[in-house]
Amino acid sequence: MAELEDKVAALEARVRLLEDQIEIHRLINSWGPAVDTGDAAAAASLFSDDAILESDLSYLIGPAAISAMVLAEGHQSLIAGGSAHIPAFPLVRIDGDRATAVGYSRVYRHTDDGYDVWRVSANAWSFTRTAEGWRVSRRTNHVIDGGPEAPKLLRRAFEPDA
Amino acid sequence: MAELEDKVAALEARVRLLEDQIEIHRLINSWGPAVDTGDAAAAASLFSDDAILESDLSYLIGPAAISAMVLAEGHQSLIAGGSAHIPAFPLVRIDGDRATAVGYSRVYRHTDDGYDVWRVSANAWSFTRTAEGWRVSRRTNHVIDGGPEAPKLLRRAFEPDA
Amino acid sequence: MAELEDKVAALEARVRLLEDQIEIHRLINSWGPAVDTGDAAAAASLFSDDAILESDLSYLIGPAAISAMVLAEGHQSLIAGGSAHIPAFPLVRIDGDRATAVGYSRVYRHTDDGYDVWRVSANAWSFTRTAEGWRVSRRTNHVIDGGPEAPKLLRRAFEPDA
Repeated sequence: MAELEDKVAALEARVRLLEDQIEIHRLINSWGPAVDTGDAAAAASLFSDDAILESDLSYLIGPAAISAMVLAEGHQSLIAGGSAHIPAFPLVRIDGDRATAVGYSRVYRHTDDGYDVWRVSANAWSFTRTAEGWRVSRRTNHVIDGGPEAPKLLRRAFEPDA
Repeated sequence: MAELEDKVAALEARVRLLEDQIEIHRLINSWGPAVDTGDAAAAASLFSDDAILESDLSYLIGPAAISAMVLAEGHQSLIAGGSAHIPAFPLVRIDGDRATAVGYSRVYRHTDDGYDVWRVSANAWSFTRTAEGWRVSRRTNHVIDGGPEAPKLLRRAFEPDA
Repeated sequence: MAELEDKVAALEARVRLLEDQIEIHRLINSWGPAVDTGDAAAAASLFSDDAILESDLSYLIGPAAISAMVLAEGHQSLIAGGSAHIPAFPLVRIDGDRATAVGYSRVYRHTDDGYDVWRVSANAWSFTRTAEGWRVSRRTNHVIDGGPEAPKLLRRAFEPDA
């Protein structure tokens, strides 16, 4: 009986880890539908209160700054032309109430005769489990341009956690 | 003992939900290999008998109409040039024997010097669990062109189920 | 009690299958971060000792040959310009200590005004569970160009295992 209880406890931990993976994917994959529809509240809600969203384009701290970016003219103009922010299937690593992910993302823009691939980026995410569920605590994004910044982010996939 | 039985029953429900997620992904991800190889039967088999497949290009009802679309000249010509129908990792929501998903898809076409991104679309899927397993009961697809239709589909990711 | 033990054993097998799926995705999704950063050791470590990596571009046998390809001038030149090897969400099938997957992959290249989609390919992978975990035992990749080779790979998604 004690052995069976141990087995069930081990299963519960493994199933929770699988569910955590799905929740992390949900956070990453919600960004596109949020920002391509201009839903600033949905975009901001993916991040923890002290989250940092940094890229070669901007450095934002906290959900209010992220919301403001979505509502700003630059982003609204991107949406008006037809945009698609699409992440690739990332490498996720979960460690208790913290998690990290590494992966690619792309921004496609509608043109007169199809689509341009405007940005292809490397990303490193950090996540934290809050009372309301998993949230992004940091996302670092850099365009892949032959320079050293994007490979530096991708290399984190093979590094032991700091 | 009763407590352990409850724990095992709860685990069974959670594992089933994870398996359902994988089956929904399988349905979504099978469309490309089916239509890019011209396998009309494989494409049709993903859908329930009363399924609707609608886009800015066509409105099809039932597996036979979907099969006919794959075999028609327009689609055959697309395949002959070299096509790739690639969905992004979607947001899936399961509720018993029904499920929904929201996500992007792209169609790449081979050209003389690489590939054109021909279509980037928003999609909303509905699924139903049948005696033979999960099937697509509705897929609505609209090209992302700056107009209101595609954002309307993407916004479903943040709406409570109807 | 015996019935509960059976239920737990069945759950353990189902959870292991879900974990295997995640490990297979991890192998497939690690290729890009390895080769786009020039990490030849990381790329080689994804493969079993007798692995074959074949495409319309090359035919490589074993981790040492794969490592050499990453270090060779052709690939280094690709990285220097800015490259992104991005697989799509594949169809994975697990059968004990063997597994297969079928799916698309793309290579994007940085240009002066954005990105070119250089290659869109069909892939068929085989995997084997080793003492160190899952490894790729074969990957066959062919560019989608309207010819018969790529559809032949994609069709494996609908074939019973050989």
